[in-house]
Amino acid sequence: MRFFSDNAASVCQPVLNALAAANSVDTAYDDDALSQRLDGAFSEIFETDVTALWVSTGTAANALALAALCPPHGAIVCHEEAHIQNDECGAPEFYTHGAKLLLGKGDGAKLAPDEVERLAASIRDDVHQMQIGALSITQASEYGMVYSPDEVRTLGDLCDALGWNLHMDGARFANAVAHRECAPADITWRAGVDILSFGCVKNGGMSAEALLLFGDAREKAAEIRYRRKRGGHLLSKGRYLAAQILAMLDDDLWLTNARAANAGARLIAKAAPDRLVFPVEANEVFITLSADEAASLRAAGFDFYDWGIGEARFVTSWDQGAEEVRPLAEAIAAL
Amino acid sequence: MRFFSDNAASVCQPVLNALAAANSVDTAYDDDALSQRLDGAFSEIFETDVTALWVSTGTAANALALAALCPPHGAIVCHEEAHIQNDECGAPEFYTHGAKLLLGKGDGAKLAPDEVERLAASIRDDVHQMQIGALSITQASEYGMVYSPDEVRTLGDLCDALGWNLHMDGARFANAVAHRECAPADITWRAGVDILSFGCVKNGGMSAEALLLFGDAREKAAEIRYRRKRGGHLLSKGRYLAAQILAMLDDDLWLTNARAANAGARLIAKAAPDRLVFPVEANEVFITLSADEAASLRAAGFDFYDWGIGEARFVTSWDQGAEEVRPLAEAIAAL
Amino acid sequence: MRFFSDNAASVCQPVLNALAAANSVDTAYDDDALSQRLDGAFSEIFETDVTALWVSTGTAANALALAALCPPHGAIVCHEEAHIQNDECGAPEFYTHGAKLLLGKGDGAKLAPDEVERLAASIRDDVHQMQIGALSITQASEYGMVYSPDEVRTLGDLCDALGWNLHMDGARFANAVAHRECAPADITWRAGVDILSFGCVKNGGMSAEALLLFGDAREKAAEIRYRRKRGGHLLSKGRYLAAQILAMLDDDLWLTNARAANAGARLIAKAAPDRLVFPVEANEVFITLSADEAASLRAAGFDFYDWGIGEARFVTSWDQGAEEVRPLAEAIAAL
Amino acid sequence: MRFFSDNAASVCQPVLNALAAANSVDTAYDDDALSQRLDGAFSEIFETDVTALWVSTGTAANALALAALCPPHGAIVCHEEAHIQNDECGAPEFYTHGAKLLLGKGDGAKLAPDEVERLAASIRDDVHQMQIGALSITQASEYGMVYSPDEVRTLGDLCDALGWNLHMDGARFANAVAHRECAPADITWRAGVDILSFGCVKNGGMSAEALLLFGDAREKAAEIRYRRKRGGHLLSKGRYLAAQILAMLDDDLWLTNARAANAGARLIAKAAPDRLVFPVEANEVFITLSADEAASLRAAGFDFYDWGIGEARFVTSWDQGAEEVRPLAEAIAAL
Repeated sequence: MRFFSDNAASVCQPVLNALAAANSVDTAYDDDALSQRLDGAFSEIFETDVTALWVSTGTAANALALAALCPPHGAIVCHEEAHIQNDECGAPEFYTHGAKLLLGKGDGAKLAPDEVERLAASIRDDVHQMQIGALSITQASEYGMVYSPDEVRTLGDLCDALGWNLHMDGARFANAVAHRECAPADITWRAGVDILSFGCVKNGGMSAEALLLFGDAREKAAEIRYRRKRGGHLLSKGRYLAAQILAMLDDDLWLTNARAANAGARLIAKAAPDRLVFPVEANEVFITLSADEAASLRAAGFDFYDWGIGEARFVTSWDQGAEEVRPLAEAIAAL
Repeated sequence: MRFFSDNAASVCQPVLNALAAANSVDTAYDDDALSQRLDGAFSEIFETDVTALWVSTGTAANALALAALCPPHGAIVCHEEAHIQNDECGAPEFYTHGAKLLLGKGDGAKLAPDEVERLAASIRDDVHQMQIGALSITQASEYGMVYSPDEVRTLGDLCDALGWNLHMDGARFANAVAHRECAPADITWRAGVDILSFGCVKNGGMSAEALLLFGDAREKAAEIRYRRKRGGHLLSKGRYLAAQILAMLDDDLWLTNARAANAGARLIAKAAPDRLVFPVEANEVFITLSADEAASLRAAGFDFYDWGIGEARFVTSWDQGAEEVRPLAEAIAAL
Repeated sequence: MRFFSDNAASVCQPVLNALAAANSVDTAYDDDALSQRLDGAFSEIFETDVTALWVSTGTAANALALAALCPPHGAIVCHEEAHIQNDECGAPEFYTHGAKLLLGKGDGAKLAPDEVERLAASIRDDVHQMQIGALSITQASEYGMVYSPDEVRTLGDLCDALGWNLHMDGARFANAVAHRECAPADITWRAGVDILSFGCVKNGGMSAEALLLFGDAREKAAEIRYRRKRGGHLLSKGRYLAAQILAMLDDDLWLTNARAANAGARLIAKAAPDRLVFPVEANEVFITLSADEAASLRAAGFDFYDWGIGEARFVTSWDQGAEEVRPLAEAIAAL
Repeated sequence: MRFFSDNAASVCQPVLNALAAANSVDTAYDDDALSQRLDGAFSEIFETDVTALWVSTGTAANALALAALCPPHGAIVCHEEAHIQNDECGAPEFYTHGAKLLLGKGDGAKLAPDEVERLAASIRDDVHQMQIGALSITQASEYGMVYSPDEVRTLGDLCDALGWNLHMDGARFANAVAHRECAPADITWRAGVDILSFGCVKNGGMSAEALLLFGDAREKAAEIRYRRKRGGHLLSKGRYLAAQILAMLDDDLWLTNARAANAGARLIAKAAPDRLVFPVEANEVFITLSADEAASLRAAGFDFYDWGIGEARFVTSWDQGAEEVRPLAEAIAAL
């Protein structure tokens, strides 16, 4: 049974249906009727004017956002465990043309405000150092934790005071909203976020993510469109990406799916309260697990990642109901 | 009726079916069973060992190929009407980190060998000039013409003699093979092509193209994989791209579709033999057309692009049968 | 006798003296008293507020200017014989992160206004094409011709109308002013130039050029300073560059030197009025010359470049008086 | 009295003399007789075949070296206090086209071997992470400490085992050799260094540094020459850079100057043995110093940098004899 990544989950049926339905739509690139509906659909959900662009991957979304928010000679503050630092093979550096990531700490891969202040203070205001232009946080974090609206706002206020832009990597944004049950606006633009990478793929989508621009950042849409084309990310049949995203938004499917994934994680967490390395808030569970225990779980057919020595990561997906997760929870409890 | 672009065509049913079928496959990125089948499938078609990587767009395929074939301080020879020069918003420059395109001429957007020689001679062998590292041709060309095996080989031999690499932009490669009814190998690696961008999207696919490496260029696969990830083009659910490509290859669907599109173009060509700007070999028809004539066709419901003054371009697609094309052919004949 | 390049000329004594004198100055980078004097010195000469930055090479000056005036996804219009296109190994592409040069024609390497209009019209206003952000001209041109104030203004007005920035490569700007005997302002900012690469090295300097920002472009100074540092062009002992430039400006030495070089060129031109390929306006002379004639001049000790077949280029330098040039003039006349 | 930077020191007389002497040399770029002598001069000093290229700044030297040793999608290990990380405004990222610096620790800004091993182990061998391509160390270090031949070799052996290249930033290489009184070869190529940035400017030069390629790295000379031109670092009158470097090498002036600077630092160190933050090995002295003490030294006319809270940095230069340094030493001793 698969618990190694939500990237390996299936595509949900409404998305597949939407692809078939899009087959009657024409017009190339993003001039089609479906792509044109994205701004409105997201504006409704986020209760403000949103400019939305589809891309194929979260890495592309993040890198395009950062390129719009930080010049090549600038720096970007993020958590030392951030996906943009560790898992994108330098896409941020590529798209920004060489901006530098400055790394901070914080529990559960949530960037601590005092780390932001430390990094801000570490840069001399002279031409020999790359001046910080943006901060990037991940919601939910790489360790499955969720920033509260207040926590985002604290960082957003810091960015305002420092003149930085704020990007949010929302590969698991749905899981974060599903956990908080808050207004999406409360943990994004109302708290100071300029651009959000709104993830769909881990949450039942196939190959579409959305880049959402709020407030003044919307003025950067034209530039980002050039950068997207130049990065090879303007699909000629873009309507099939728009269709996926719209299907995810219809009837709040994105939240339904995320709730299902989160519920799976909670089920595991309940089975192993003493093993939890981090509180379980989204769809990831990190537990202490000896090599022998890991081996026995694998022998029983559970597939997951070791996380350093003596720990393991389990990721639950939208398509895993209690009946699929319970055997794992029971197996862990029985260790 | 749509004749403005094959990008606007629908996705063929076997591709949609393959997406649904892929839903039972897991494993992320390109480690899945479908992605792993690509090398073998293309090796069979091309009668040699091929390394195949999926990407989402032809622009990404071209740019990744060129980045692997030419250093940042190098130059790339192509036709002045090439897609990489005019329609990719600088993706080649972005992925190569600033290589320069050197432009040559040739009838029907097919690069003339003597132009290649002229450009080669125009570069001094000193550090002040970007030395040519690669040549890129489009098959079928931007004007719907097809290089014969001998024509490709002539360019391939020039590249060999000059120490250049040879890239082929095959956004409409299927249409070229369908026109020639030759072995795919004969107009690619046997004629000196190192890397081929093998197009699917214009030919009934949805969002998958293949980058095919032949011969020594296969050693560049590892580097290209890093570049692909770094460009944000490593989809986490890559199996859905592989599925599309494999569906196109099954039972030579790629050729069946291309033959259908080519047939539509021939139908139009026959209706207007005196208007043809270029011989019709693939699925594009360029004809002389006055502004009044264009207006009357549009009034009759035909959608197409003007091509400069007094000319127009009609592109036929895999999903347009004779019943859909004939009205256009008759309308042109009746002008 | 050397007529192959003014790059090979010696350094004039006042510049050497200034280096010695600068040895009593300290403070690193460009915080020293000499560097701080540049703005004022140039503002006086150009009769407006100028922000001046030293760099070591004309290539760096040009590339930094273009990077400030055009985004990575933009295009730069220049003459097809421009130094930035043919002789800088892609420095503009490197510093702009991949902007594309679009090439126009014009007599004597002076860009023709109708070519500018043609290129402007050639770009569709869509995301598939790199939109033109800047125009760059060379004064004096690569063929030793000088744009008049009206000619620059015509191009400047076009740039204004099109929303482009205007850069002037002034590697031989001194020779142009010496030819025209006009106010430097008249062929730069008053005619629409935003940034001027003000050359010293070919004109008696050693290793210092100045980047001059006019009008609104002065707001880009901070960004250019970061780019300069990042390009490795912020010399730690920058005072020795400032000293060179100030020495060139003192008592109009830059014009005195340029006049001397121009006079040499005129001397040669007078000796061969029927051979001139271009009018001689600055310090370069292009003449028709058969292979035999070239050989005989070389046998007589004259060193110069062939320029294609049947033509040759002679460059005179600030340090070549009539006594050194006359033998060449006589030898050509005697052919 | 100046103790804030050796960048602010004067240029030594032999270098100025060499500039004047070079005035009789011609030929542009690096084709002149002086530039052509560099390989031989360095080969003698380093007891092996060396390919030497001049550049204007240490930043350019470092960045060009790293670009030759690490691909855009690679990573470079260095000390967290390294100049390339903190003081070059991203020049390594610019020239490498986005490689990532991975930061390690070590006393006195000398990178600890176990940190190298830790960083090596931290990178997964997959396409999502930038694979380490090079290690860069600074000799003498940013805190004025000198790697012994064994220490360099330990790192060199690690690089060999890991398949990495080894770069040495030798902005103060002369001070390191003067301290060790070892063969230059022993702390460079014999210990595994591939490319050395050989500094002159801090040591009495004006505007010339040398990039030295050893062993297999010499094969990268052609590529580096293109990169140098493209970076705007190929001075047209390069003979004046070569002249400076040759003057520094003549009669071991580079070592004489470095010994003088080191002696000054030792003089200060002896006056404040209990205040030393780091052992004094080159020409930098870091001492504990309260704000009041710093103020009193400044009131007495001494100019230096605070180094965090409660510490200060004093840098001695080649042109500061005991008579200039002794007053500082006595003032510190008297605190």
